Formats: sequence, C-alpha cells, structure tokens
Amino acid sequence: MFDVIAFDADDTLWHNESHYQQAQADFAALLADFISPDELPDRLYQTEMKNLALYGYGAKSFMLSMVETAVTVSHGRVGGNTVQQIIELGRQMLAHPVELLEHVPQTVAALAKSHRLMVITKGDLLDQESKLARSGIAHHFAHVEVVSHKNAAVYANLLQKYAIAPQRFLMVGNSLPSDVLPVTEIGGQGVHIPYHVTWQHEHAAGHPAAQNGYFELEHIGQLPDLLARLAGN
Amino acid sequence: MFDVIAFDADDTLWHNESHYQQAQADFAALLADFISPDELPDRLYQTEMKNLALYGYGAKSFMLSMVETAVTVSHGRVGGNTVQQIIELGRQMLAHPVELLEHVPQTVAALAKSHRLMVITKGDLLDQESKLARSGIAHHFAHVEVVSHKNAAVYANLLQKYAIAPQRFLMVGNSLPSDVLPVTEIGGQGVHIPYHVTWQHEHAAGHPAAQNGYFELEHIGQLPDLLARLAGN
Repeated sequence: MFDVIAFDADDTLWHNESHYQQAQADFAALLADFISPDELPDRLYQTEMKNLALYGYGAKSFMLSMVETAVTVSHGRVGGNTVQQIIELGRQMLAHPVELLEHVPQTVAALAKSHRLMVITKGDLLDQESKLARSGIAHHFAHVEVVSHKNAAVYANLLQKYAIAPQRFLMVGNSLPSDVLPVTEIGGQGVHIPYHVTWQHEHAAGHPAAQNGYFELEHIGQLPDLLARLAGN
Repeated sequence: MFDVIAFDADDTLWHNESHYQQAQADFAALLADFISPDELPDRLYQTEMKNLALYGYGAKSFMLSMVETAVTVSHGRVGGNTVQQIIELGRQMLAHPVELLEHVPQTVAALAKSHRLMVITKGDLLDQESKLARSGIAHHFAHVEVVSHKNAAVYANLLQKYAIAPQRFLMVGNSLPSDVLPVTEIGGQGVHIPYHVTWQHEHAAGHPAAQNGYFELEHIGQLPDLLARLAGN
C-alpha cells in the first residue's frame, strides 16, 4: 500500500520531552532566588515563542531562551556562573544517550524489510543527525530529512524530491499539527501515536478507522498490524 | 557539461564573515573590563572549537560560545545585562539584511536559464533558509540543502539523492576544504572563489586550467565565461 513510511523522531522514535522537562526543573532550581518554580515555565515559554521565528526549533534555541529568561526574571542580577550552569543543562541534553521508545527497535527492523523507511524531523540539524547516529536504528532508514517547519508545503516538497506519490506515503508521529494533519492535507496518510509516559487515552483498543482522515495508535508496536489490516482491505 | 551547478551560500552568494567580524568587535567592546580586545578572539575561537562537535556550525552556536567565553574570561563576574547584550549581537546577525556579493544576482539569473542550480550550505537550518528566502534569488534554485558537514560522504549522498552523475556536477564556493576538495574527491568538479574584501591573489587574470583538479576564479561573474570555455573544449 505504501512506498515510503516516514517517522517523526522526537517522542516518536526516542524520548525527548521528558529531557526538556528535567532541564526545566533544574533550570527552576538554579533561579529559585529570583522567581518561583511555578511562575518560571510560563516566562520561559513566552521567551521561546518570542524567539521561535528567529531561532527555530531545537536544543540550542532552548538554551538561548533559558539564558535570556534568566536575565529577564532576575532583572539582570543573574550571575555569570549561573549562566554557565544553564548552558551546561543544555549541553547535557545534547549529549544525553538516546532512549528509544518501547517497541521501536523491533518495529522499525520489521518494517524495514518490507518498506522504504524515512525520518522527517524538526530541530537542530546536527543534534537530530547525532541522535539518529547514536540510536542504533539509523541503518533502517533510507532517507533522513531535518526540516525547519512541518507544514503541507514542506511535505509536498519532500514527496516531490523523492518522487513519492502522496497516496503511497504514510507519516507516523506524535504530533497531530506537525506529523499528521499537513500530510493528510496533501493526500498522504497519517498515523498519530500520542506521547505519554502513562497512556490514558480512552480509545485504547483496536485500530480505529480513519474517521478523521488519519489513524490513531496506542504505541508504535501496533503499526505492523495496522499495515497488515490495510493491505487486507 | 554539467547537469547541476551547486553553490555554497555564506561568503559565496552573500556576505557573512564580515558580520561575524563586526559581532566579534562589538563582543570585545562589551568585555573590555575583563580582557584585552587582542586576546579575546583566541579565547572565543578555543571555545568554538571545543563546542563544534556538540553544537555544529551556525549563528546560534556562535552565540552560545560567546556567552560561555564571557563567563570564562570574566571568571564568572560578567553581569546578566552584558550577557543579554551578547545575545543581542547574535540576534542582529540573524536578522541582518542579506547582502549579496557583487555579480551574484545577474550571474545566478543567467545560469538558471541553462542549468539546474542548487544551494548546499552549512550552518543553522532555519537561518540559512531564511537568508535564502530574503535574498531575492531563491527562485533560481531548484534544490536547497543545509548540511551539518561538508565532506565527500555528504556530497556523495546528495548526488545519489538527486541522481546526479559526479562528472556532471559542479560545486562553486569560497572554501577549498568544504566546497571544492571533497567534491573533486568523489569525481565532481569544483570552482574556488576566495572571499576577500580586497582581492589580492597573484593569479588574477584569466581562468587557470584545473591544474589542481579544480578551477579558481576572482569573482562569481567570471563563472559563465568559464563554463562557455569548458563547453567549447
């Protein structure tokens, strides 16, 4: 049914958000003299949103926004050594071992036998390439694309570049607005697999039909079964 | 002779190094209380080299290395407001209007009529895409690739991706180790156009034959003539 199956990376193939949350908790501890840990996340988020158009996504943008937030919430009183500790938080994120999500290694290995696989991810170019290189599953992917945005135009451009017909393209990821909806918009198919430390979605069982134009799974280990059912139809 | 002509971007299509030099001069002025402007560039360069493997190339890496250098050379005494001023230097670089090099608009427009053109550049993904979008010449390029490294393996991978035969690929850029030598290594052809505010190279005239396996030009405006001569052979 599909010539190419593409995967998002962060929080689809490996854990990412959990590392950001840990860094934010450490960041709040470093700035406890200046701001309550309850108030800091919103201030950081505001800085990130202000900087997004100029910096783009990724860990280095996050580091720069943390430093800027520290200066702002401390009214310039943050010390140089604290600034360096903030940078170290980001360095730890960049150097952190890649932790694949459950079911990822065996699922990717199995699908690579029958399909051309691809990674399409946002973020820092080098960071994403480095994580894939360290993941142990890089050899299963025929193509890797790090993009600055995930919208319909970007996906259309990628499909054209690789000469993939949209109806023979499946994208798998944890984000509806980034991984699924822009793909269905251009005639491809999408599988949404929400990222949750503890899965609490009410539609737990089975493989719901594409009522909204896409499929939703509990975890990536269910993907081969979904593909088999689709091929049987 | 060539199916695809690819161009480096920074200091080949538009000015870049001059903006880095300005930012470094402003950076030195901000830290004048802590270190002599003569000594700072070497300290910054050391920090950049230490961080290169983790951060990669580009303006955000440069910003993070400036902040780290400020903390180090001030022994932690740099103030938060100075840190923010350093970040502002980087933001100005990211937001700076794109200044095309002389001869670039007319040369690229002319070559686009007869060849498929491409940009292959290192650096921040979003920053490079943004600069190209603001350059006014983006529509002449069929493909744009931002890569984390420029070595023979990366070029070979790109040629494979676009199904380009190496001997029908020409790469044009200001860096011998990044733009020319890895391309000639895989059987492509390279044109070296050094970036100098004032050109002082001793081989000023004409289009020297590829004695070293590549061509060298004074400025990009000489490229159509070189291609015409090569086609005439």
